[in-house]
Amino acid sequence: MTVRERVAEVVDGKRCQRLIIAVIVVNAVALGCETSPTLVAGFGGLLAAVDHIALAVFVVELAARLFAHRARFFRDPWNLFDFVVVGVSLLPAAGPLSVVRSLRILRALRLVSMVPSMRRVVSALVRSVPGLLSLTGLLLLLLYVGAVIAHNLFARAGDERFADLGATILTLFQITTGDGWSDVMRDLMVQQPLAWIFFVCYLLVGTFTMLNLFIAVVCSAMESDSDAPDQRVLKEVQALREELRLLSAGARIPEHVSRN
Amino acid sequence: MTVRERVAEVVDGKRCQRLIIAVIVVNAVALGCETSPTLVAGFGGLLAAVDHIALAVFVVELAARLFAHRARFFRDPWNLFDFVVVGVSLLPAAGPLSVVRSLRILRALRLVSMVPSMRRVVSALVRSVPGLLSLTGLLLLLLYVGAVIAHNLFARAGDERFADLGATILTLFQITTGDGWSDVMRDLMVQQPLAWIFFVCYLLVGTFTMLNLFIAVVCSAMESDSDAPDQRVLKEVQALREELRLLSAGARIPEHVSRN
Amino acid sequence: MTVRERVAEVVDGKRCQRLIIAVIVVNAVALGCETSPTLVAGFGGLLAAVDHIALAVFVVELAARLFAHRARFFRDPWNLFDFVVVGVSLLPAAGPLSVVRSLRILRALRLVSMVPSMRRVVSALVRSVPGLLSLTGLLLLLLYVGAVIAHNLFARAGDERFADLGATILTLFQITTGDGWSDVMRDLMVQQPLAWIFFVCYLLVGTFTMLNLFIAVVCSAMESDSDAPDQRVLKEVQALREELRLLSAGARIPEHVSRN
Amino acid sequence: MTVRERVAEVVDGKRCQRLIIAVIVVNAVALGCETSPTLVAGFGGLLAAVDHIALAVFVVELAARLFAHRARFFRDPWNLFDFVVVGVSLLPAAGPLSVVRSLRILRALRLVSMVPSMRRVVSALVRSVPGLLSLTGLLLLLLYVGAVIAHNLFARAGDERFADLGATILTLFQITTGDGWSDVMRDLMVQQPLAWIFFVCYLLVGTFTMLNLFIAVVCSAMESDSDAPDQRVLKEVQALREELRLLSAGARIPEHVSRN
Repeated sequence: MTVRERVAEVVDGKRCQRLIIAVIVVNAVALGCETSPTLVAGFGGLLAAVDHIALAVFVVELAARLFAHRARFFRDPWNLFDFVVVGVSLLPAAGPLSVVRSLRILRALRLVSMVPSMRRVVSALVRSVPGLLSLTGLLLLLLYVGAVIAHNLFARAGDERFADLGATILTLFQITTGDGWSDVMRDLMVQQPLAWIFFVCYLLVGTFTMLNLFIAVVCSAMESDSDAPDQRVLKEVQALREELRLLSAGARIPEHVSRN
Repeated sequence: MTVRERVAEVVDGKRCQRLIIAVIVVNAVALGCETSPTLVAGFGGLLAAVDHIALAVFVVELAARLFAHRARFFRDPWNLFDFVVVGVSLLPAAGPLSVVRSLRILRALRLVSMVPSMRRVVSALVRSVPGLLSLTGLLLLLLYVGAVIAHNLFARAGDERFADLGATILTLFQITTGDGWSDVMRDLMVQQPLAWIFFVCYLLVGTFTMLNLFIAVVCSAMESDSDAPDQRVLKEVQALREELRLLSAGARIPEHVSRN
Repeated sequence: MTVRERVAEVVDGKRCQRLIIAVIVVNAVALGCETSPTLVAGFGGLLAAVDHIALAVFVVELAARLFAHRARFFRDPWNLFDFVVVGVSLLPAAGPLSVVRSLRILRALRLVSMVPSMRRVVSALVRSVPGLLSLTGLLLLLLYVGAVIAHNLFARAGDERFADLGATILTLFQITTGDGWSDVMRDLMVQQPLAWIFFVCYLLVGTFTMLNLFIAVVCSAMESDSDAPDQRVLKEVQALREELRLLSAGARIPEHVSRN
Repeated sequence: MTVRERVAEVVDGKRCQRLIIAVIVVNAVALGCETSPTLVAGFGGLLAAVDHIALAVFVVELAARLFAHRARFFRDPWNLFDFVVVGVSLLPAAGPLSVVRSLRILRALRLVSMVPSMRRVVSALVRSVPGLLSLTGLLLLLLYVGAVIAHNLFARAGDERFADLGATILTLFQITTGDGWSDVMRDLMVQQPLAWIFFVCYLLVGTFTMLNLFIAVVCSAMESDSDAPDQRVLKEVQALREELRLLSAGARIPEHVSRN
């Protein structure tokens, strides 16, 4: 047993995984505590220490796994996920990159990659994405076309929400979620009484497309689940016909055909 | 017939159940009436009396069932539910526990445990919960991670809704339900024009996960419902093949195989 | 051919139905026009005349159908619907009953009972109701229990929306639809910072129950649609096994068994 | 090979299609840039030139396809779509028709007709429409009937949102989408405390009908997907019974029956 194999055994073992899960949870709680000024005033040093130790543990763990699995390490997308999430925390977080400090909590998402049942759920989520690309593309196209039209029609009304193309896209996204669309429309209708035509059309087309996006997700989820029994029945019946034909031709049904 | 058996017969009988249902309904109506100052001024004594009598009836009934079924009583989760709901009403309701008084109306939920069709509905609801634990865990994790990020990014804007971690979690829960999320975002964008990035990302990820939670519920509901016929067909066809093999081997199909 | 049979032939004929549909549409448009003061000022007499003529046509038609079908007339729920809708228009509409005048437009719903494809859609809607009674009962129970609790907890905050039990039920209904629930909650939290506990619990329980109500509708709709082929397969396979047993016993398969 | 055939080969070829897709994308981006005053000030001439060139390319392409396919051209609804979208851009856009200028961006929707996967998605969307006509008709009827009633009941309250029949229809549409319906109701309840009866009824009936509309879409989508295996099983089993009958009658199963 080489050193590499021994490291692999330790790193992929149950004990090591439980330790990492514990570190993730402790780290997540510590980062949560850091949001409270009172706790930071009292235990700021402790919290920072926990964060540094957790990061050190993660770096060591990833290095060990990288050493144990070499190139194979990067073939598993979950490993890539762990790598990026930990890597982000190593970036310098000064000046304009202070936002990066906020992203340290993303390490808590490593819980997903460590707990098998969550891993399965997220894998199922991600697998359903490719089947939705065409519909998502269609929605983005509708958003862009709708935003150009809306900006041309409503920008002169002086409404902040249609001030430039970006703001208009954001407003149309808001309308697609159905939140406060009537306020946006009624504000515009004071100056442009026909504005409702655009809103009603966009809402109907957008909602109908979203509905179909949703149905596509449901259908693909059902399919992978439920057509199995049907397929088994079909195979059984086809085998049965074959056997009957053999029987009719005077042959005995051979054992190995009967149990395929 | 022992006393215990006779008590069990009475307590589990149809008449006793109908009486309890009647008491539950009368009690619920009385507690509803107690919310009206006019009715309390006129009939306060009567309403309090109804409440005390109903509670007494429940206590006697539960004691009788406990006596009749002994340890078995606590194996049925519905009995536990009845026990807790009635027990809550017996707590002293003075001082800081005055909230407990409001919970007396929970006794009306005993209706669910007494009416078989409602019992079945709620049982189905509860049975669908375990299959959703992973996805619910994922949603809670997203809520926590999102709240830590949102608090770090938006707390300095001085917005009440992001003042501490608890408030931020509540705000993100509100955003997940889609109610008034655009108001929250637009208020923040006055100071932090890039706030929309967080909101759009969180909404997309959150909604997509919720959608899949929903689909998981639908799928599990469908499965337990609809694969039964498929399974029966499969069994029938497999039995048929077995019989044909027997026939081919020169044997007669025995009656007991043909009617399994 | 008696007079009764001749009347039935005319009243149930295609021509008469088309005439009635035309009258319904014209009447609905006229009632729509009556909402415009300008049109009433110009053509008030004409619009009132159209309304009176349409009502007369409906009364004559119903009387003829009643004469033709006698007691059978009331067995068809659609006829009852027509009868009630037309009957409402004959009520005196003075004084406190002026609301009844507004209900004349309900006659336009007769279109549903006259157009077969709409009739089928509404029949399907109505048929799905009984399967939902238990869940609807559960939702109403939750609404009542929630309202009593909410009134007891929040009434002293002086909020209009929780002033009495009726107002509280309406507010909880609003929360169940998800419209503006966060505004209601935040207004209360100024005085009662723990109000969010009730809102989050109620929203989770209510939404989860609604979701299951929804799934029950989908499932029952699917079932009535899709288990037919499964059932046919099952019957075919069972018949097949019966035939094979006959064959094995040395008998010929009789024609009438083979084609059941 | 005639000129017509050669033109058809070029126009329907992969290269030409890729060129057109590129032109569509460039044109869409240019029209997006035109919404920014800064970009128009700097590159206005270029952007206008891109727009004119793109339009010229589209006109030439459509003319070539029209020449190549003649009357067949108009049988494909996608061609009609391209024709209308490009035709709109050729209209004079002065004076009251300035809205038409905004519609130039609709050309970006040609992307849908050029990219096969999007084409399939939209075709599926459009195919699901006929099955929904009855339910949509029912919803429109409910909207009209509800609007006439609501206008009669609430117009005298002086609320802008119920001022005339058009405004009332728009308000009811807003209520059906569930956005801000409680605000509308509470504003009215100040003057007419019983207004909630109409809103709750309309919301329940409208939502229930919408839910069924939605279910109809899901069911039709599922059906076209999933009943295929069931049907195949049914056919197999029926063929099997036929063969067994032949066998029982002493005949051999002919090859061609066994493999239908």
